[in-house]
Amino acid sequence: MHILLLNPNTTGTVTDLMAEAGRAVAAPGTELLPVTAGRGMPYISTRAEAQIGGAIALEMLAGHADEIDAAIIAAFGDPGLLAARELFDFPVVGVSEAAMLTACMLGQRFAIVTFSSSLVGWYRDCVALNGMTSRCAGVFALELSFADVAGDPQGTSEVLVELAVRVVRDSEADCLVFGGAPLAGLARRERHRIPVPIIDPVAAAVKQAEALVALGPRKAVAGSFRRPPAKPTSGIERRLAARIEHRDGPRP
Amino acid sequence: MHILLLNPNTTGTVTDLMAEAGRAVAAPGTELLPVTAGRGMPYISTRAEAQIGGAIALEMLAGHADEIDAAIIAAFGDPGLLAARELFDFPVVGVSEAAMLTACMLGQRFAIVTFSSSLVGWYRDCVALNGMTSRCAGVFALELSFADVAGDPQGTSEVLVELAVRVVRDSEADCLVFGGAPLAGLARRERHRIPVPIIDPVAAAVKQAEALVALGPRKAVAGSFRRPPAKPTSGIERRLAARIEHRDGPRP
Amino acid sequence: MHILLLNPNTTGTVTDLMAEAGRAVAAPGTELLPVTAGRGMPYISTRAEAQIGGAIALEMLAGHADEIDAAIIAAFGDPGLLAARELFDFPVVGVSEAAMLTACMLGQRFAIVTFSSSLVGWYRDCVALNGMTSRCAGVFALELSFADVAGDPQGTSEVLVELAVRVVRDSEADCLVFGGAPLAGLARRERHRIPVPIIDPVAAAVKQAEALVALGPRKAVAGSFRRPPAKPTSGIERRLAARIEHRDGPRP
Amino acid sequence: MHILLLNPNTTGTVTDLMAEAGRAVAAPGTELLPVTAGRGMPYISTRAEAQIGGAIALEMLAGHADEIDAAIIAAFGDPGLLAARELFDFPVVGVSEAAMLTACMLGQRFAIVTFSSSLVGWYRDCVALNGMTSRCAGVFALELSFADVAGDPQGTSEVLVELAVRVVRDSEADCLVFGGAPLAGLARRERHRIPVPIIDPVAAAVKQAEALVALGPRKAVAGSFRRPPAKPTSGIERRLAARIEHRDGPRP
Amino acid sequence: MHILLLNPNTTGTVTDLMAEAGRAVAAPGTELLPVTAGRGMPYISTRAEAQIGGAIALEMLAGHADEIDAAIIAAFGDPGLLAARELFDFPVVGVSEAAMLTACMLGQRFAIVTFSSSLVGWYRDCVALNGMTSRCAGVFALELSFADVAGDPQGTSEVLVELAVRVVRDSEADCLVFGGAPLAGLARRERHRIPVPIIDPVAAAVKQAEALVALGPRKAVAGSFRRPPAKPTSGIERRLAARIEHRDGPRP
Amino acid sequence: MHILLLNPNTTGTVTDLMAEAGRAVAAPGTELLPVTAGRGMPYISTRAEAQIGGAIALEMLAGHADEIDAAIIAAFGDPGLLAARELFDFPVVGVSEAAMLTACMLGQRFAIVTFSSSLVGWYRDCVALNGMTSRCAGVFALELSFADVAGDPQGTSEVLVELAVRVVRDSEADCLVFGGAPLAGLARRERHRIPVPIIDPVAAAVKQAEALVALGPRKAVAGSFRRPPAKPTSGIERRLAARIEHRDGPRP
Repeated sequence: MHILLLNPNTTGTVTDLMAEAGRAVAAPGTELLPVTAGRGMPYISTRAEAQIGGAIALEMLAGHADEIDAAIIAAFGDPGLLAARELFDFPVVGVSEAAMLTACMLGQRFAIVTFSSSLVGWYRDCVALNGMTSRCAGVFALELSFADVAGDPQGTSEVLVELAVRVVRDSEADCLVFGGAPLAGLARRERHRIPVPIIDPVAAAVKQAEALVALGPRKAVAGSFRRPPAKPTSGIERRLAARIEHRDGPRP
Repeated sequence: MHILLLNPNTTGTVTDLMAEAGRAVAAPGTELLPVTAGRGMPYISTRAEAQIGGAIALEMLAGHADEIDAAIIAAFGDPGLLAARELFDFPVVGVSEAAMLTACMLGQRFAIVTFSSSLVGWYRDCVALNGMTSRCAGVFALELSFADVAGDPQGTSEVLVELAVRVVRDSEADCLVFGGAPLAGLARRERHRIPVPIIDPVAAAVKQAEALVALGPRKAVAGSFRRPPAKPTSGIERRLAARIEHRDGPRP
Repeated sequence: MHILLLNPNTTGTVTDLMAEAGRAVAAPGTELLPVTAGRGMPYISTRAEAQIGGAIALEMLAGHADEIDAAIIAAFGDPGLLAARELFDFPVVGVSEAAMLTACMLGQRFAIVTFSSSLVGWYRDCVALNGMTSRCAGVFALELSFADVAGDPQGTSEVLVELAVRVVRDSEADCLVFGGAPLAGLARRERHRIPVPIIDPVAAAVKQAEALVALGPRKAVAGSFRRPPAKPTSGIERRLAARIEHRDGPRP
Repeated sequence: MHILLLNPNTTGTVTDLMAEAGRAVAAPGTELLPVTAGRGMPYISTRAEAQIGGAIALEMLAGHADEIDAAIIAAFGDPGLLAARELFDFPVVGVSEAAMLTACMLGQRFAIVTFSSSLVGWYRDCVALNGMTSRCAGVFALELSFADVAGDPQGTSEVLVELAVRVVRDSEADCLVFGGAPLAGLARRERHRIPVPIIDPVAAAVKQAEALVALGPRKAVAGSFRRPPAKPTSGIERRLAARIEHRDGPRP
Repeated sequence: MHILLLNPNTTGTVTDLMAEAGRAVAAPGTELLPVTAGRGMPYISTRAEAQIGGAIALEMLAGHADEIDAAIIAAFGDPGLLAARELFDFPVVGVSEAAMLTACMLGQRFAIVTFSSSLVGWYRDCVALNGMTSRCAGVFALELSFADVAGDPQGTSEVLVELAVRVVRDSEADCLVFGGAPLAGLARRERHRIPVPIIDPVAAAVKQAEALVALGPRKAVAGSFRRPPAKPTSGIERRLAARIEHRDGPRP
Repeated sequence: MHILLLNPNTTGTVTDLMAEAGRAVAAPGTELLPVTAGRGMPYISTRAEAQIGGAIALEMLAGHADEIDAAIIAAFGDPGLLAARELFDFPVVGVSEAAMLTACMLGQRFAIVTFSSSLVGWYRDCVALNGMTSRCAGVFALELSFADVAGDPQGTSEVLVELAVRVVRDSEADCLVFGGAPLAGLARRERHRIPVPIIDPVAAAVKQAEALVALGPRKAVAGSFRRPPAKPTSGIERRLAARIEHRDGPRP
């Protein structure tokens, strides 16, 4: 089984981190194909960046569609997820979606813990778009930047674990999600220090993508996620245009 | 990996059906341990039966706790699920929960299709308890009994597929769930005749249980799903009592 | 009018406390029949205990069905309530349900105040199951145990009144509910010290049960609360089995 | 116990009908004091009429405040209810509020059945204001006028019972409410012909008012239902003005 | 274009303040007609006062219906708004409604900031009635009275700006609304000191009324906002009675 | 006042249609600057196309930022709206947002009427993202394509008016919105044939953009719509990149 681990950011080291977190839980026989965006931003952290990064994710998916059984959009907030689910025939999973749904099986209310308050509004939109507001005890953040996290992973771990412990005490969350791509792997490493289950979004997404492939659901040919009819395009990346125009040929 | 497939009903043939549906998607290395309730009702289909069957499920879990990595409560409506999640240390997944959460990755709105209108009220409670009302396009039912389904599986398939097709057309659901233990396996068999993805709850639950075991979340020691403190009991089944009284010993 | 005051816990002194609180408000002509569970736990305080205690409540109802006009399930969280409402022909009221509905006539938002944070998750589930989340300003708790409350009623009163006053100030609740069976009677005794109306769940349930008996609604023969059709059982308590199997004879 | 049965309409025959429906269920010792509005409209059926009628209800309450233990605002839609609850010291109950809350103890979802589609929008506002949308299966109406109902009570009964039966079948409601003052008494008379419990709002309100008086909640001195501080007025009905200006003297 | 700026309070100085705030943003060609209630209360601040003030607003609208293209009900909480929208043929806008809807175009979540905690319950009802609860980050208040605000506008400004700044920091609101008629003009004056956009309800209402007049929607002749059929009245203010009885003649 | 009327589609004739509909209601002194996407799809009608079109809209906004006071994203579904609101300093309004908010001032529930069922899922997502689900009576569609509408405007008008009339009768909507860019102008032209107010999204958006400019809200410097800090980009359209990297200079 080949699962595309699509990083819509341009930072390869984050892709590596996520691939490592994903491989730690992947089943035998699952091969993760990590790819890093060839254009865009080093790290998506706002709605505007997600709008652009989501469109880039579609290009990346079009470029790899023939090689894969499923894809993971690996940026918290899931840029381009619903668009991808509609446009492509293989299952597509978002890391925040996967984290929230998995968390629902570990308690009645989850909280999201992240490193920067600038992410909170966008993450809250994402919770709402998933209809998960009643299951979410809140989105809680430190005041660190992407550079802070990259520059001092150990220090970041410490303060995030402290925040996580505080959130459990104050928000009555039954479980937690560490949100934000640069935190991949952290949940697994630090779970013994946090008194409730904590989800790694990338790890959850790998298991959910495997689940969907094993279940083998058909591509919708009715409802709002059927493939849109062919439509002309102009000025769109070559392979994405081919997909939209139905010039991409049948799947092998 | 050993996963208990717990049928809180007393009908062994339904357990067999579910085990078959589960094994069809289980990963290599996953061993399903099907068990059938030793007491109770042939088929849980009301709130009262679920109240009793949920307590029986706890007894069954206590009896098998030492042998398993995770458990599936395999009756639609998930009798005893939250209680089990609180009381035991291993992950516990319900089939309706698993079906709904999995469906959320295949569309914005799912519909539940089942064989008897007597199940609708209880199923709708279950959707609400999961906070899934905004994702659910409705619960739709035929007017068949458990005996009808058992007695004429082929005829049942036909009318359920017809209902499923009609629901997709009328409710604008993006995907479907076939609810009801005796329908195990039907989604896989008939998916090509239904124009949107359709989930088999048992199959979904097997994959979700595998996912949780792979992710290895710790048992909560805080929040509302921590194990309750020891408490005396009287007149409770022996092994369940031992679990509640903390006389069940450490896990091996 | 005979109203069963059903304590699904095994602690007779709590039953006595609740009977006293109920009798203080009962109408002339109302006779409360207090019964204490013959098996189970001294005090239900978790989801697992509620699952078991709810099934025991059904046994108790089956045992007294011929003698009563209505029943009250007298444990906060209402274990077995919907099951009982479906299975039996007389009205059944839960104490938390009654408290919340009554509170709705005294303000737009009520808060629940209780003695132990271990109850909060389960109580919050109960608020949600009743569709009362938008009317509920929160569930607030001290960190006392059942033993603490039983051992020092006076001290408990003091700290609960303090908490109640604080909750009114901070949560903008228009009225309060004291949740938890061992607090029966407290609301009446301390209401002058708390600046908003405060509901005693047992007292509210007695008045609601009287109301339902006076209104004389018929037992549903349609919808999801009609009596389930007869079904065989095995290993179920004798009188409950008779009710499920329709061997309990017509009501006198 | 004296309970004001306040009809904010000017039609005395409807007051009589409601008094009869109320007395049929009142406890021994409860005295209903029916009053009919001295000015206003014959029958409130729109938002504009409710705005005016609600202000008239406040005048009527001010005029009878010294004589009563509780009051019922007896027009479906509950004109002036929250205002009255805030302004006066005794409990005030609305008939639609009472009907909906009582219905919640007889099933998970109630439907409202009424005689005129012109009432539906206003009734739906009322359901929402009570936070009851998730418990309400819908508001269903015939196309009759107030005059039709007054002129042919027997014919109205027939078509309303037919509608009620249809609503149970199609909406999966667990119980019903007959909404609209001229339908007072109908639920009791026709309940055997309708397959689920059906609530008479006036009857429910009488029992709820009795319940509140028996429980004896204090008047809030904090929160949003405390009595507003004294305020000057001009051009307001004499006794209502006295109440607002705190010139109405202490309660006897 | 003539827009009635209807102050349902009797305080002319507040009308002046609001007229000034409205004229600061009105388009060329828009003429605001400020009117002050001839009877009622100096300042509506509770549900009871809003019930009465809303009925007075209908009288005022009936008195000016022939002269205007649209009307604004200029008291936060919008007393009488839905009633007016139903009864009259011209567009009617409420200041809180206009403020909230306008705020929705400036961020995902707005907070309401006001001067007195006694307004909070009523304002929260208003948010809920507008279906805006999910967009509202809260209602936040000082502990000042109407007299305090009137007596020390400068001091009030200072403490309100401080509160606004604190609310932005603590509630994660994307924008703010200054609620309460005596605060008219404050948002415009102090907007540079508050780090998110802040809405003046009167100013927003003027622009929304202009928008509706320009769009020229027809008066509904179906649905729940069609004009109610003629109905007799007694004891109602002359021109309002004429409107309800359809004796008010065609619009010029 | 200069308002950009941004068509994120490549079909100039639709831009013309929208400009005409907008100019019909624009205030004197408002100048609409219509622009058509230079790349993309002829008509956005799915989530995937909206993801791409929303990113193109950001490029178009960056290209015109210096010339305008406000912008309208003129494709129903509002592609890129929240991203634009965050990234740019001037007000940005979406046509569906504007239509829904305006409709809220004309009734309690609006319905959306459009020409193609393929738009329904995406439109429903849009309603939910705006928190408007409780105000929306549904999204109703014909089975026409963009080409059908473009090819036979008169025939389209007829069937859409028929659908609108049917929706009012069956859904109890108080007002309607005609959704879909090629329907611009239709509401104004046909409003006399539809029994409730009907909103033209482009016209509503012009008035809302004018309103925001007149109100003059500041750009947020706190909250989740503050401008994101400078961030490097690669492979992004030149002017959009400059905006993201803070190389776009101060506003004139």
